[in-house]
Amino acid sequence: MQDVMKKAEVLIEALPYIQKFNRKIIVVKYGGSAMSNEDLQRNVIQDVTLLKLVGFKPIIVHGGGKAISNWVGKVGKKAEFVNGLRVTDSETMEIAEMVLSKVNKQLVTMVQELGIKAIGLSGKDSGLLHVKKKYSDGQDIGFVGDVDKVDPEILYDLLDRDYLPIIAPIGLDDNFDTYNINADDAACAIAKAVGAEKLAFLTDIEGVYKDINDKTSLISRLTCSEADDLIASGQIGGGMLPKLGNCVSAVREGVNRVHILDGRIPHCLLLEIFTNRGIGTMFMNDTDELTSCAK
Amino acid sequence: MQDVMKKAEVLIEALPYIQKFNRKIIVVKYGGSAMSNEDLQRNVIQDVTLLKLVGFKPIIVHGGGKAISNWVGKVGKKAEFVNGLRVTDSETMEIAEMVLSKVNKQLVTMVQELGIKAIGLSGKDSGLLHVKKKYSDGQDIGFVGDVDKVDPEILYDLLDRDYLPIIAPIGLDDNFDTYNINADDAACAIAKAVGAEKLAFLTDIEGVYKDINDKTSLISRLTCSEADDLIASGQIGGGMLPKLGNCVSAVREGVNRVHILDGRIPHCLLLEIFTNRGIGTMFMNDTDELTSCAK
Amino acid sequence: MQDVMKKAEVLIEALPYIQKFNRKIIVVKYGGSAMSNEDLQRNVIQDVTLLKLVGFKPIIVHGGGKAISNWVGKVGKKAEFVNGLRVTDSETMEIAEMVLSKVNKQLVTMVQELGIKAIGLSGKDSGLLHVKKKYSDGQDIGFVGDVDKVDPEILYDLLDRDYLPIIAPIGLDDNFDTYNINADDAACAIAKAVGAEKLAFLTDIEGVYKDINDKTSLISRLTCSEADDLIASGQIGGGMLPKLGNCVSAVREGVNRVHILDGRIPHCLLLEIFTNRGIGTMFMNDTDELTSCAK
Amino acid sequence: MQDVMKKAEVLIEALPYIQKFNRKIIVVKYGGSAMSNEDLQRNVIQDVTLLKLVGFKPIIVHGGGKAISNWVGKVGKKAEFVNGLRVTDSETMEIAEMVLSKVNKQLVTMVQELGIKAIGLSGKDSGLLHVKKKYSDGQDIGFVGDVDKVDPEILYDLLDRDYLPIIAPIGLDDNFDTYNINADDAACAIAKAVGAEKLAFLTDIEGVYKDINDKTSLISRLTCSEADDLIASGQIGGGMLPKLGNCVSAVREGVNRVHILDGRIPHCLLLEIFTNRGIGTMFMNDTDELTSCAK
Amino acid sequence: MQDVMKKAEVLIEALPYIQKFNRKIIVVKYGGSAMSNEDLQRNVIQDVTLLKLVGFKPIIVHGGGKAISNWVGKVGKKAEFVNGLRVTDSETMEIAEMVLSKVNKQLVTMVQELGIKAIGLSGKDSGLLHVKKKYSDGQDIGFVGDVDKVDPEILYDLLDRDYLPIIAPIGLDDNFDTYNINADDAACAIAKAVGAEKLAFLTDIEGVYKDINDKTSLISRLTCSEADDLIASGQIGGGMLPKLGNCVSAVREGVNRVHILDGRIPHCLLLEIFTNRGIGTMFMNDTDELTSCAK
Amino acid sequence: MQDVMKKAEVLIEALPYIQKFNRKIIVVKYGGSAMSNEDLQRNVIQDVTLLKLVGFKPIIVHGGGKAISNWVGKVGKKAEFVNGLRVTDSETMEIAEMVLSKVNKQLVTMVQELGIKAIGLSGKDSGLLHVKKKYSDGQDIGFVGDVDKVDPEILYDLLDRDYLPIIAPIGLDDNFDTYNINADDAACAIAKAVGAEKLAFLTDIEGVYKDINDKTSLISRLTCSEADDLIASGQIGGGMLPKLGNCVSAVREGVNRVHILDGRIPHCLLLEIFTNRGIGTMFMNDTDELTSCAK
Repeated sequence: MQDVMKKAEVLIEALPYIQKFNRKIIVVKYGGSAMSNEDLQRNVIQDVTLLKLVGFKPIIVHGGGKAISNWVGKVGKKAEFVNGLRVTDSETMEIAEMVLSKVNKQLVTMVQELGIKAIGLSGKDSGLLHVKKKYSDGQDIGFVGDVDKVDPEILYDLLDRDYLPIIAPIGLDDNFDTYNINADDAACAIAKAVGAEKLAFLTDIEGVYKDINDKTSLISRLTCSEADDLIASGQIGGGMLPKLGNCVSAVREGVNRVHILDGRIPHCLLLEIFTNRGIGTMFMNDTDELTSCAK
Repeated sequence: MQDVMKKAEVLIEALPYIQKFNRKIIVVKYGGSAMSNEDLQRNVIQDVTLLKLVGFKPIIVHGGGKAISNWVGKVGKKAEFVNGLRVTDSETMEIAEMVLSKVNKQLVTMVQELGIKAIGLSGKDSGLLHVKKKYSDGQDIGFVGDVDKVDPEILYDLLDRDYLPIIAPIGLDDNFDTYNINADDAACAIAKAVGAEKLAFLTDIEGVYKDINDKTSLISRLTCSEADDLIASGQIGGGMLPKLGNCVSAVREGVNRVHILDGRIPHCLLLEIFTNRGIGTMFMNDTDELTSCAK
Repeated sequence: MQDVMKKAEVLIEALPYIQKFNRKIIVVKYGGSAMSNEDLQRNVIQDVTLLKLVGFKPIIVHGGGKAISNWVGKVGKKAEFVNGLRVTDSETMEIAEMVLSKVNKQLVTMVQELGIKAIGLSGKDSGLLHVKKKYSDGQDIGFVGDVDKVDPEILYDLLDRDYLPIIAPIGLDDNFDTYNINADDAACAIAKAVGAEKLAFLTDIEGVYKDINDKTSLISRLTCSEADDLIASGQIGGGMLPKLGNCVSAVREGVNRVHILDGRIPHCLLLEIFTNRGIGTMFMNDTDELTSCAK
Repeated sequence: MQDVMKKAEVLIEALPYIQKFNRKIIVVKYGGSAMSNEDLQRNVIQDVTLLKLVGFKPIIVHGGGKAISNWVGKVGKKAEFVNGLRVTDSETMEIAEMVLSKVNKQLVTMVQELGIKAIGLSGKDSGLLHVKKKYSDGQDIGFVGDVDKVDPEILYDLLDRDYLPIIAPIGLDDNFDTYNINADDAACAIAKAVGAEKLAFLTDIEGVYKDINDKTSLISRLTCSEADDLIASGQIGGGMLPKLGNCVSAVREGVNRVHILDGRIPHCLLLEIFTNRGIGTMFMNDTDELTSCAK
Repeated sequence: MQDVMKKAEVLIEALPYIQKFNRKIIVVKYGGSAMSNEDLQRNVIQDVTLLKLVGFKPIIVHGGGKAISNWVGKVGKKAEFVNGLRVTDSETMEIAEMVLSKVNKQLVTMVQELGIKAIGLSGKDSGLLHVKKKYSDGQDIGFVGDVDKVDPEILYDLLDRDYLPIIAPIGLDDNFDTYNINADDAACAIAKAVGAEKLAFLTDIEGVYKDINDKTSLISRLTCSEADDLIASGQIGGGMLPKLGNCVSAVREGVNRVHILDGRIPHCLLLEIFTNRGIGTMFMNDTDELTSCAK
Repeated sequence: MQDVMKKAEVLIEALPYIQKFNRKIIVVKYGGSAMSNEDLQRNVIQDVTLLKLVGFKPIIVHGGGKAISNWVGKVGKKAEFVNGLRVTDSETMEIAEMVLSKVNKQLVTMVQELGIKAIGLSGKDSGLLHVKKKYSDGQDIGFVGDVDKVDPEILYDLLDRDYLPIIAPIGLDDNFDTYNINADDAACAIAKAVGAEKLAFLTDIEGVYKDINDKTSLISRLTCSEADDLIASGQIGGGMLPKLGNCVSAVREGVNRVHILDGRIPHCLLLEIFTNRGIGTMFMNDTDELTSCAK
């Protein structure tokens, strides 16, 4: 009987969120470990389709991970990096695009297997992602681009008709040349452009820590100012910095909540969204009230 | 962490039902102990509003319980019964209608307090419930009626505009005279007329037992034929008989599932609907497949 | 033949009004003698349904009259008054609500008998009438309230779907406690909130007189300023004062025409609305032109 | 006061008809004396616009009367007749079309003066009236045609947008040549094609008499069979025969009621339609019940 | 093969215009020689129906030309002119209206023959053209009017339902008297009132010349300022002046392009609209860019 | 001037087709030489976008041509064929999918450059193409599939919102494994499923010849029976046979017209569709009338 009452409690906790997020857009950046382990992959895809079932309008933005390097190797090229950014000549760009397409259609297939209509897009389709060439400290690193305009019309059209869009981070510039885009940046730009309710990054960390050495210091909620302070304090490690920047910028430009989640925890998306406490770090505006249901 | 995984499981179990029952009508017959205890009252009303929040279209049909007898006493009348049916002269009918109105508006107020739009109706409003005079073994027992026609238009109109209708079991006959109706019968007639997905009776028993003396023999699911057999077997006690009749007749006339629940268990509605096993007895068609998700 | 020409004249006089008031809302405050005489009752209900037939959207607001006192007596309580206002303890309030419900459903039934869809509401339904406790010269007189907010959504929804709403003057305060409201005040507040074209008070007087002692001095039309002057002149008797206040305030807050009619004249509503001269007193804005068709 | 009650009675008699005929089509054949007297003209046009104001959708079909002969004379031609039908050579047809256009636009102007949107059409517009050449006892009488197809689309489009169509009885044959049509026939064909509720002929007689010599024997209502009997009895005079034929044929092909009215009685249309007894002769189906409100 | 490539070129040139002008209104003033030659008549009507087929919404405004004088003669009247304007007494007005009606219905018939729904209107219908009496140098010349208000509602309604309106230039003044209107002026007023994309005058000249004596100096495009200069230069002949005034005024009040075409060239409308260079003179705003596709 | 008249003729010939095909679907199979020459590529894409501009709803289905073999070589694999069908192991399938994706997005980019919204799909997206494994004379040739079900919903949704879908011929089987599909077969299956008005194959031949050795014997129109006879006659060469089979089957299953065009002729699509004679071979039903405008 006690077990049954626990169930009732979980439901009473979760149900109001379902109403609250009805017809709202959530952008999920999918990458990292959650992408290489097949069980986790199934978990993530199941979570996203459940979100869709109960009324969310999810959009997945994915990276290509290690597969690109593998294929670059297969054709006998050597990968080259500048400041951690892949130098992308036109042949490398061709391979990157082909590999991302392959990954994209794999995700489409997995969603279709669960009975949900999915469509794979790249940023080229209907002019979704427009880019400007990016330089690394002034150095030309080839076809690497920064998003400078998003045309969300195709996303609205697909969401209206109940499709789940899955997006590969590739774009066109003014000359209709093809560019690679960092997947975090693409997800962030898209979330802003569609006025998403939520943006969730599936990562390989549990969230943001007050003290990176103290695993008990995970921060559940962070306002933008608090994030600014944290960045200013110098405690945030290098790899984490651009991610935090994306989170704060997304909230400041209209995304209501941004979440950093540990993609290695099964069903991290459901747990973050449908429980009061959540399991990762949630970013919010300074002016939002910190009520128990601030999610 | 184990606790967190439990939560994920409850959610993964519950979420598909939410999708399945989206925009479906559930008629809840509210009466018995769940009506006299204030905590249970709050539980029931909270459950119904949560059902509404996540997409159900609930309708409440209520009785008047002991309050009618109290008020009959207050004006100095003596209650009189024939075969367990209250003899209802015109003054008793007047009092019954007034008391049911009072109860009706109390329920409306409780739902409004939770921020949900409710409307209290009697079967007189817009000709909702039309009755024929009922006789008890040929004996005239006054203004007691059987529903012989339901005009569900007002319910569709209110559900369309997102109201929660709360209905007192009173009706008019061809002469536009006022009649009292058994609340179980009214709920059953209304569920059939609106083609409800579900009809749930909140009662003072846990459900139907294979062996009334063996509390472990509670039946989770019962097809109409099985119910027929059970009735034929003579094991079902007197008070339970008409309720079983209502259940079977509702399923046979198009209500997809009928539930007998123990209104004394907090949140019995949520537990029955959003868990695979449920907690009461569910009635279904003979031809329905008994899959794990037959709910 | 002359008789026939008379008919043509009446029609030619009436038809343009029918066009003019198509889809317009009229709030009818129903009370007084027109409520106690059964013939007059039928006349009023017939008039209101005819108004509806030819395109008006009527709303009825009714009082409870002497029936409340009768029932208070039945349960052995003694009615108590302060400055003419009934002292309303919680038991009296319960009885008042029950009696008003009974009257409400009687009116619903009468309209239904004429083949028109009616719905009985109290101000509790869907939060229609919100009140603040009223004090009489600072003295606590119990559950008597002043309307301080009307939520007309339910009325628009019902009128859209072609129902005739019939409203009992009861409301809830911030604590969701039940209060009695003066029916004139309730009608006036509702007419303002829905932007009614017309508000008609069925009373026991013929209208407003220039000289209360001269029955030939009935005023057909009165602008707000003229009404102000009349009030300032001190000629208006006590009982009439709050009614005049309601009329002037309704016109000033957007009700196009307010009518005081003698409910004892059969079909007073039709005659006031569909004849050029009318039979009672009509209130209008100062700036309206006094053309022959100013109705 | 008695006068006032009379008014109420007229209204109570008329109002239900207004509801009954809401959005229904009435075709009025306008011709005869009602066309030559200017006061009667104003009366007819006022009646038709009042019908429109209170919800009818009227269509006027008119003839050209004596004006055609006048203009034929003006250009020095001599009118020629065979069996009472005008021999219509192509020049006569040209004049007839021009004169009917003139009359048509005069009626349009009169309706516009009353603030109602009117449109003048001939049967050529949008292919409204298609004809076959008519022969008189095998003799060629020129451009005189029988309607053999009506394309009512333009009428539905104009009625939908709230225009009052006024139609001159001219049509085209398969070779797109222009033909004159008898106005009674045109009105009858149009009424059938649009499924009119009513077709009213304004004539120079009071209606149909049982005994043509007994002015008190006017028949208020006539079923099709009764009309058949009357025709068979040989009592109906020559000029009346084709009109009766049109009435019976219209009823049999779906027009609910056909009325023969005396266009010389002012406001005959209002009186026939909005009073129980009417003033002319009404044709109806054999199977319709002869209730008091059979109109 | 070369021939085939030519066809492809014509199509590639024409197709973008079809897209550009989809659902746009073009007003065609039809008169002059194009009206008296039957082959040219067929050409014009064919062109207009083709424009309609490919998505334009055309409106034709026509004059009556020499037919009016002919009919005035037939009834034995003598035509009289003041400053080139016909003195129009009431009988002449009657004849003019009748003749214009005849021409109007002829055009309707020709369009119908090509399978397109046409409707003939005069400016009286639904109050389309409202006029003020016009004086010629202060001299009363009878029923000649200047358009002072256009009510385009009827045109929008007909275009919405896919009719081709054909308009005779007749209007009503405040007293509902009938007036004749210059057809160029009527076309210009209508084009402004409906916000036409194009207004095309079919005339008996090729267009506007830089030097009237040099046939090679035809001007293809003219901005309003250039037209002003041309007028100021005194080179434009008398008959051409009001036409140029209409063109400039139409462009300045919102008609995007105005065209003067030689109605004697077969299919001048198609050639002007669907070829880059056109064949007449096109008027445009000063601020429009003179790109190759400025049409 | 003669040149100008020629233009008018081309327009008069072409314009009715534009109306006729408004909102109709045309499926274009794009492959062969038209794919390898860059000028021809631009011509084809321009034609398709012009078709879209004037109201067609085009869908492009493309192959991958030689690029697949190239990439198979790049990764050091050797292409293997059985009966002319590529043996497709899972690595070859991976490469084929990636190459087709690249080609797909190139076409998307070219259409976007012309200002038209394009979306690239594979048959995996939203379950568009479902396949069964194909055997070559009973021999397993790997992941080569036959279309056995098309779910056209995504195409309708995209066409409704005005996108141009570009489809790579890849599908999933019951196990959600990836298969390669012959592009002609995919185009044919899609044209049937969406009920296309037209299906056009861009090929490297001019059309079907009566006598393959006589270049003047090109057949402009062919009914299905005639095609059957031609096939039976044994005159049709091997490579042509399956194409003819596709043409006949498409017409028999509801595609109104199927065209075999020479993709090497610039603008072959425009010339075939907008000229009466066309330039390739058109397939039609036996029962269609062979009028001049049978296109």
